[in-house]
Amino acid sequence: MKQRVISSLIGLGVLVVVFFFLDTLLFNIVIGLIGVLAVLELLNAVKCTRFRALTALGVFIAAAIPFAQEHNVRVLMPAILFVLVLAFFIILLKDHEKLRVEQVAMVFLFSVFVPVFFSSAIYLRNSFGAGVGGLYLLWALGSAWLSDTGAYFTGRAFGKRKLAPLISPKKTVEGAIGGVVVATAAMVLVAYLYQSAMALWAYPITVNYLLLVLLTPVFSVIGILGDLSASVIKRQFDVKDYGNIMPGHGGIMDRFDSALFTLPAVFIAVQHIVVVAIK
Amino acid sequence: MKQRVISSLIGLGVLVVVFFFLDTLLFNIVIGLIGVLAVLELLNAVKCTRFRALTALGVFIAAAIPFAQEHNVRVLMPAILFVLVLAFFIILLKDHEKLRVEQVAMVFLFSVFVPVFFSSAIYLRNSFGAGVGGLYLLWALGSAWLSDTGAYFTGRAFGKRKLAPLISPKKTVEGAIGGVVVATAAMVLVAYLYQSAMALWAYPITVNYLLLVLLTPVFSVIGILGDLSASVIKRQFDVKDYGNIMPGHGGIMDRFDSALFTLPAVFIAVQHIVVVAIK
Repeated sequence: MKQRVISSLIGLGVLVVVFFFLDTLLFNIVIGLIGVLAVLELLNAVKCTRFRALTALGVFIAAAIPFAQEHNVRVLMPAILFVLVLAFFIILLKDHEKLRVEQVAMVFLFSVFVPVFFSSAIYLRNSFGAGVGGLYLLWALGSAWLSDTGAYFTGRAFGKRKLAPLISPKKTVEGAIGGVVVATAAMVLVAYLYQSAMALWAYPITVNYLLLVLLTPVFSVIGILGDLSASVIKRQFDVKDYGNIMPGHGGIMDRFDSALFTLPAVFIAVQHIVVVAIK
Repeated sequence: MKQRVISSLIGLGVLVVVFFFLDTLLFNIVIGLIGVLAVLELLNAVKCTRFRALTALGVFIAAAIPFAQEHNVRVLMPAILFVLVLAFFIILLKDHEKLRVEQVAMVFLFSVFVPVFFSSAIYLRNSFGAGVGGLYLLWALGSAWLSDTGAYFTGRAFGKRKLAPLISPKKTVEGAIGGVVVATAAMVLVAYLYQSAMALWAYPITVNYLLLVLLTPVFSVIGILGDLSASVIKRQFDVKDYGNIMPGHGGIMDRFDSALFTLPAVFIAVQHIVVVAIK
C-alpha cells in the first residue's frame, strides 16, 4: 500500500510536469511513449512479442500515430489502412507456420486502437487549445482514476455483490456505484478549481456543470468497461500484471486501462457537446 | 471443369445485369449481399458462428456499410468506431468463458474490412459516376480475375517453381507471372472496347493506357496477395472451401478473394492518379 501511494504521488508529479508542457511537442512524445509501452505490454501479455516482424510493425504504428498530422491522415486514411492490411497479411504469409491469423488480427487492433485512443489527449489539445483542452483531459483522467479510487474505498466499506467475479474478483457493484458518485462529485470540484485557476491567469472559461454532472457517470462506466476489458485479456492469457513500470500499480496498461477508454469517450462527446468554453 | 465454366458464365451474366444497374440502389444491395455472405463464410470458416451475439454484430456491420452515407460516416467515424470497440468488448465480457479476445479481434476486422473493401465498388461509382467508375470497377475485377485465369493456363503449360507450396500448392511462379502479363494485355483490350462502347453511347472518355499498363501488374500482384491471404486462413482452420454458392468455384470468398484486395487498391490509386476521365 505504501509503495502504491508513493508510485501514485510520483505519477501525479509526472502528470503535473507533463501538463505544463501540454502545448508543446513534448506532450506528443509522452503520449507516444505511453502508447508504445502499452502496445509492447499487450503484445507481451498475449505472447506475440516472439513474432519479431509483427512486433516491429506494431511498435512502428504506435510510435507514428501521435505524430501524424491530422490533415494528412484524413486524406491518406484509406491508403494507410489498406497498406497496413497488406503489411499484416504479408507478415502472416511469411510466418504462417507459427503465427495465426487471430494473433495478427489482435496485434493489428492493439497497435492501431491503443495509440489512437491515447492520442485522443493530443486531439483534445489540438481541437480546443491547452486551456479548454486541459480541463477536458483532466475530465477523462478524472472519470477514470477518481472512479477507480472511489470504487476501492466504497467497495472496502460497503462491497457485497461481485461485479464480475471471474474477470475481476475484487470489484463489487457497490464499489462501482460509489466510484461513479465519488468521481462525479470530485470532478465538479476539479472543474471549479481549474476554472478559478484559469481566471487568475486571465484566461476565463465557462463550465456547464449540469452537463459535467450528467456525463461524468457515463465516462466512469466506460472507464470500468476499459478496466474489465484489460482484465479479461489478462485472465485469458493467464497474466497477473501487464508490467511493473509503476511499482504497486503494475504496467502502463494496468494504470491506464480505464483512461484508455475515457480519453476517446470524452474527445468524441465534446466534438458534439460544448461543456467547457472560453468566456 | 464443365461445372466451373457453367458457373463462370452464370456469374458473368449476373455481373452484366448488375452492371446495368450500377447507378441505382440495387448495386448497393448486391454489394451488401456479397459482403454479408463473405463475412458469414469467413466467420463459419474460423468457427465463430456459434457465438451468436458476435455473429449478429458482424452481419449487422456488414449489412450497414454499403448503405452508409459518406458525409455522415466522415463526421461520425470516430464515434462509430469507438461504439463498435465498446460493443465488441461487451460481447467478450459476456461470453468470456468460451470466446477469446483473438476471435473477437478477428471477427471485428473481418466485419469491418471485408464490407468496406467490397464497398470500394460503390465508392468508385459515387466518386467518378457510372461511366468512368464502371471502367475502374472492371479494372479491379479484371486485374483479379483475368490474372487468375491467365495464371491457371500459363501455370499448366509452363509451371515449375511453386509460389507458396504450403499455402496454395497448385500456384507456380511461372503461372503468377503469366497471369500478370495476360491480365495487363487483356485489360488494354477491355479498356479499348469500353471506351469504344462509351463513344457509341455519346459518352466519350479518355484512357491513359500507359498508366493502365503500368498499374495493372501492381493490382494483379495485390490480387494474388488477397488470394493467398484467403488461402492461409483456410489452411489454418483446415477448411477446403469457404462455401459452395458457385459450384466449381466455392463460396463468395473463394471467387472474390483477389477482387477483395484489388477493389480498394484501384479506388485508392485513382483517388490520387487520373487514369480514366470524361473527354
